[in-house]
Amino acid sequence: MVGLPARGKTILAYKIQQYLNWTNHKAKVFSVSSYRRKHIELYSSHDLFRKENSEAAEIRQLSAQEAQDDATKWLQDGGDVAILDGTHITQARRQTVYDHFAKVMGYKVLFIECVCDDEMLIEHNVKEVMQFSKDYRNMSSEKALDDFHHKIEHYMEQHEPMKPKTDGYSYIKYLNAGESLTVCRLNSPMQSEVLAFVSNFKPLAKTFYFSRHGESENNVLGRIGGDADLSVRGRTYAAALARYFNNENRLEGLRVWTSELRRTHQTAQGIKAPIEPVPFLNELYAGVCEGLSYEEVQCKFPQEFAWRDQDKLQYRYPWGESYIDIMTRLKPVLLELEGDIDNLLIISHQAVLRCLLGYFLNKKHEELPYINVPLHTIIKLTLSGYKCKMEVIKLNIECVDTYRMQPKNCSVNRSTDDALQTVPAHFENLSLWNHAPIVQL
Amino acid sequence: MVGLPARGKTILAYKIQQYLNWTNHKAKVFSVSSYRRKHIELYSSHDLFRKENSEAAEIRQLSAQEAQDDATKWLQDGGDVAILDGTHITQARRQTVYDHFAKVMGYKVLFIECVCDDEMLIEHNVKEVMQFSKDYRNMSSEKALDDFHHKIEHYMEQHEPMKPKTDGYSYIKYLNAGESLTVCRLNSPMQSEVLAFVSNFKPLAKTFYFSRHGESENNVLGRIGGDADLSVRGRTYAAALARYFNNENRLEGLRVWTSELRRTHQTAQGIKAPIEPVPFLNELYAGVCEGLSYEEVQCKFPQEFAWRDQDKLQYRYPWGESYIDIMTRLKPVLLELEGDIDNLLIISHQAVLRCLLGYFLNKKHEELPYINVPLHTIIKLTLSGYKCKMEVIKLNIECVDTYRMQPKNCSVNRSTDDALQTVPAHFENLSLWNHAPIVQL
Repeated sequence: MVGLPARGKTILAYKIQQYLNWTNHKAKVFSVSSYRRKHIELYSSHDLFRKENSEAAEIRQLSAQEAQDDATKWLQDGGDVAILDGTHITQARRQTVYDHFAKVMGYKVLFIECVCDDEMLIEHNVKEVMQFSKDYRNMSSEKALDDFHHKIEHYMEQHEPMKPKTDGYSYIKYLNAGESLTVCRLNSPMQSEVLAFVSNFKPLAKTFYFSRHGESENNVLGRIGGDADLSVRGRTYAAALARYFNNENRLEGLRVWTSELRRTHQTAQGIKAPIEPVPFLNELYAGVCEGLSYEEVQCKFPQEFAWRDQDKLQYRYPWGESYIDIMTRLKPVLLELEGDIDNLLIISHQAVLRCLLGYFLNKKHEELPYINVPLHTIIKLTLSGYKCKMEVIKLNIECVDTYRMQPKNCSVNRSTDDALQTVPAHFENLSLWNHAPIVQL
Repeated sequence: MVGLPARGKTILAYKIQQYLNWTNHKAKVFSVSSYRRKHIELYSSHDLFRKENSEAAEIRQLSAQEAQDDATKWLQDGGDVAILDGTHITQARRQTVYDHFAKVMGYKVLFIECVCDDEMLIEHNVKEVMQFSKDYRNMSSEKALDDFHHKIEHYMEQHEPMKPKTDGYSYIKYLNAGESLTVCRLNSPMQSEVLAFVSNFKPLAKTFYFSRHGESENNVLGRIGGDADLSVRGRTYAAALARYFNNENRLEGLRVWTSELRRTHQTAQGIKAPIEPVPFLNELYAGVCEGLSYEEVQCKFPQEFAWRDQDKLQYRYPWGESYIDIMTRLKPVLLELEGDIDNLLIISHQAVLRCLLGYFLNKKHEELPYINVPLHTIIKLTLSGYKCKMEVIKLNIECVDTYRMQPKNCSVNRSTDDALQTVPAHFENLSLWNHAPIVQL
């Protein structure tokens, strides 16, 4: 990363890390300033960044070296992409990085320069840094703001912007938070993957809501997949959800995305906002097991059932999908979410929401298939900078629990009892439930 | 597409089409000049492009309208990306296109402007156009060259370059055949996918060679997958291949990519060039069926065997891969092949080479699993512009035939005989073959 302070380098660095990790590349940010903080625990003032302060310069030099060393070690240990988050504002500094990683180590080096010529945007970024930076935790906001502006001035004295035409490096310029990009000499698929993300990404504060569809008739019967209607209780949830978004939590410009399946349409139905079906949000397709109960899967395809329990992330139903498959098809959705969008409610399905939440919460891939996303619950994510806050809002409408833990015995030779050990309770027929009184809210 | 003649628009348009189609998006080029040729069958001269020639201007206007109409219809019929290949050199023309597709139809519009300020590059492009354009088929090359330069002049008189900062469009500038790019306002994952390709693509003439590994011991035994050594005949092929590339067909800067499997290493071994193992080039992984013969697959997993025959493209072996899976993992390889690389020999495997060849030869996805890529055969591709020439070079070394046609009966209830109907002949043990005399070349 290259750029003066408060140009959005750190957010972009962490977002690239998050996206690459989710798409199964091992990426890691090495933040030069956190190495500096190891040497100077208590930040005192901008004097640290004065050109003439040779003692401090030595420490900053050392921190940069340590970040570089750790990044190198991490790449040698099998990492795919190391992201050096520092200012790198002089040509000499950039050449040092390039010489080490490209010439000595033989890696591809891509410089991403964050540039702002929009004063309002810089002020916005400055405020964000104030909020997140560990340097300013113990300083009054007024003093911090003044100090930070001095820090920027020290950097500007030494600043040598990149010259993409003559520098000769692989290069992306990210101007004014994504207003436009300049791209030179990309020469690897990984660099193009990074560019695909960066060209979409807008560092905006935003709020997303996620909900599974209301309880479906298949949920009640313990059947997976299919395209069932909502149960009576599911329709009650739909009404409660509409009330939630139409009344007390009315949002400016709310949009709703559903899957193409009936149960998500029916759940969205009463919400006063544009509703758009998105095929990428369809539930994991269970192939030959669509519409079966777990008991029936065990009876008809015991080997498949055991294989799925052994590795739920990788396992793909015959003619169906795996979690890895839906992560691949969700990539365009994530790119849209990282773009210019806000106040969005996604009504989708258990496996799909596990993957989307896993992205924003930086979960490991192996954890995704076991994230608990209960029915009749709104999950609210508030994104600000590279931080993500999650709130869980339970609308108090009864429903079945569809969560099935990994059973102890995942062998293909296990008994039926062992295979069905963790299957959640469900009902034999719908008659009881379709005639239950609708809960009034 | 936007740009003066001979700026590389058409090549880029066709390459984007090819790449998007391969990655399972429906993309199609609509070439304004071929609509014009429907009205004026015999091209006479550059007078057609004179600003003052109002009759011709009307025809060109009509052609643009027809291309736009067909593109619209095609999108309405389920196409994902229509690529309008025309000059679109005036702001008024671009605004017409934008108003129709974005405002009236509600589609996303991306302008890709091809710009050259490198005279040598323009001359190179001019020569390429001379070679491929239907307008100049019946003209002497001298006259054609003169005419084409006049045509460019007429366009230059009317030319209004795009102004990305103020135009307000989603925009990519492709400068000097990919030397640098400028990118503004991308706002969809599809646009980012296009950018990922465009940022890699270099419109260079290039030559690739493909070969499967030499016959392996598993080939002799009719076993799929595994990591077997070459048979004696396979080693003979390796020697012949080395002789081919080291002697009569020695190539400037030849590089060799293999998979990580032994049989490809052993095949590459004698070639005097840098040899690089690329994990993406590993054979389709057959999961629980690795190392089995077709007879054993039928015996142990008859249902899986039938499912594979029903849809070889989509079918994934339990814990293994499908053709679709290897196409996904081959994307980075294709991006590299479309970049700055030439004189490359890829030694890989049947399924992987089917997919790579399918890309360059614009095959439909359903055809890929049945493309015949025999052992002991070099396939040479010569790429020039958006044309691709294929030559098949058989090195005359005996080997088994591994090609298995789709059998007539693909039902899960078929008999063993029906299932094994098209299994190619193979041998029960290696002893005969390991001691066969090595064919001298």
